[in-house]
Amino acid sequence: MRNLDEQTITQAVLTRNAGTENQRLHEIMTSLVQHLHAFARETNLTEEEWEKGIEFLTAIGHITTDKRQEFILLSDTLGLSTLVIAQNHKKPEGCTEATVFGPFHVANAPRYDLGEDISGGLPGVPWFVKGTVTAKDGTPIPNATIEVWQADDAGFYDVQKPGLEDYHGRAIIQADANGHYHFRTIVPECYPIPHDGPVGKMLEALNRHPWRPAHLHFMITAPGYQRLVTHVFREGGDYLDSDAVFGVRSSLIADWVRHESGIDPYGNSIGSLYYTLDFNFILHNA
Amino acid sequence: MRNLDEQTITQAVLTRNAGTENQRLHEIMTSLVQHLHAFARETNLTEEEWEKGIEFLTAIGHITTDKRQEFILLSDTLGLSTLVIAQNHKKPEGCTEATVFGPFHVANAPRYDLGEDISGGLPGVPWFVKGTVTAKDGTPIPNATIEVWQADDAGFYDVQKPGLEDYHGRAIIQADANGHYHFRTIVPECYPIPHDGPVGKMLEALNRHPWRPAHLHFMITAPGYQRLVTHVFREGGDYLDSDAVFGVRSSLIADWVRHESGIDPYGNSIGSLYYTLDFNFILHNA
Repeated sequence: MRNLDEQTITQAVLTRNAGTENQRLHEIMTSLVQHLHAFARETNLTEEEWEKGIEFLTAIGHITTDKRQEFILLSDTLGLSTLVIAQNHKKPEGCTEATVFGPFHVANAPRYDLGEDISGGLPGVPWFVKGTVTAKDGTPIPNATIEVWQADDAGFYDVQKPGLEDYHGRAIIQADANGHYHFRTIVPECYPIPHDGPVGKMLEALNRHPWRPAHLHFMITAPGYQRLVTHVFREGGDYLDSDAVFGVRSSLIADWVRHESGIDPYGNSIGSLYYTLDFNFILHNA
Repeated sequence: MRNLDEQTITQAVLTRNAGTENQRLHEIMTSLVQHLHAFARETNLTEEEWEKGIEFLTAIGHITTDKRQEFILLSDTLGLSTLVIAQNHKKPEGCTEATVFGPFHVANAPRYDLGEDISGGLPGVPWFVKGTVTAKDGTPIPNATIEVWQADDAGFYDVQKPGLEDYHGRAIIQADANGHYHFRTIVPECYPIPHDGPVGKMLEALNRHPWRPAHLHFMITAPGYQRLVTHVFREGGDYLDSDAVFGVRSSLIADWVRHESGIDPYGNSIGSLYYTLDFNFILHNA
């Protein structure tokens, strides 16, 4: 213990942690210490590089607030989020796939009734979204809680817009007794993840773009079923093959149907461009 | 790219990073991504555990200021700091060993002349410290810059004491033309690393104490020699075998000589307890 070197330090830390009572914590810390040390040895990390790492993490911590979660951005852009989601939600045969949560979810979104405009009055191309929530065998799941959040037509979430106090483009709705849901909003655009902070600098140094393909976030919960956190992506859109956060799943890409004009799903005539989406969610038993 | 799972995500991230121009950064990120992913797979990390990790890092970021560096504490308590120092300063045959920098160094410490009291008037048992700075062959190194910092007799650094604006127990001095240095201060005590934050909670969960053995920090620089960052520990003191940050080196443990009373090195009579330390530093060629 008084003469540790870059090899013996690892066992010394593990020995020091040996008294951990929580066995799961002990398991996690053992793996973490081993990989952290192996990384430093393998790269022969210098003190200057270690300092840069400390500064990088500090900058991430300092830019993180209750509205901006730069550590989640880091996890997302390093593929850790996708890995953790994938191993906890093995591609469920016949069920809707999960994908990354992302940093833009906000608690306590407003509740809307079925059919309402959840955009909060944002300008943009009207979009009518509907579908059903069912179990694997096709049985409708009644009254599922559906949380939706999205960027606007310039690619920004409400929390990114200074001075915008209200919620826009986020809602909690409830499917009906037959598992049907439907609402109206605007078409969200592709957007770069926030890249004016440390993670943006990292992406630049890695010669990577910060863009995500256009998508709509869903989080669906119903008693007796596993919570589903996912997106619906736009078929034919940009960045489907280079999502900055590795979130795209083929099964989650859908046709956002374009209509030059017509009769919307609520029977009203629309004289200009609008889109419709029909997407069914299939939940996994809890 | 549209159907990544917990295995294929790793290669996908490495492929995405392949355009990194800085080859050293590319090397570090490749190792980092591989170990980060291997850690998550090996532990089969859950989403809830991932969230706890994000919260832990966020809390560390938020408690970190220019006076408290919780990320360095994390690195220190996980043994990473010792590993990085050890591999960058292989035990130099005949030279003074390096050890951890620690989180309490502060830039722009006050300059003192040789022989002055660097404690800034702190109460405590007087301590007279002296020695020489030489090259490996014994040649004195003239005029080395010696930065010193230490805890007080209650185990606190000045930056930990609310309301204390001035520097106490930290100094920049200069050895003389013959490599001699000497100053006066007070004897520092053992102390717990700050454990009222996230790292303290981690240590508690790991059933580890936060204490460090008593020590005096030195950073010595001289043209033509490698910078030396080290401590001098107290022979016979507590925690030498369980330093919370794994910083002890046998070669850095010295006799802090106790005198009940006597004549101090400056020829003055002292009627009460005091200590002396004689410690020579041997620098490595740059």
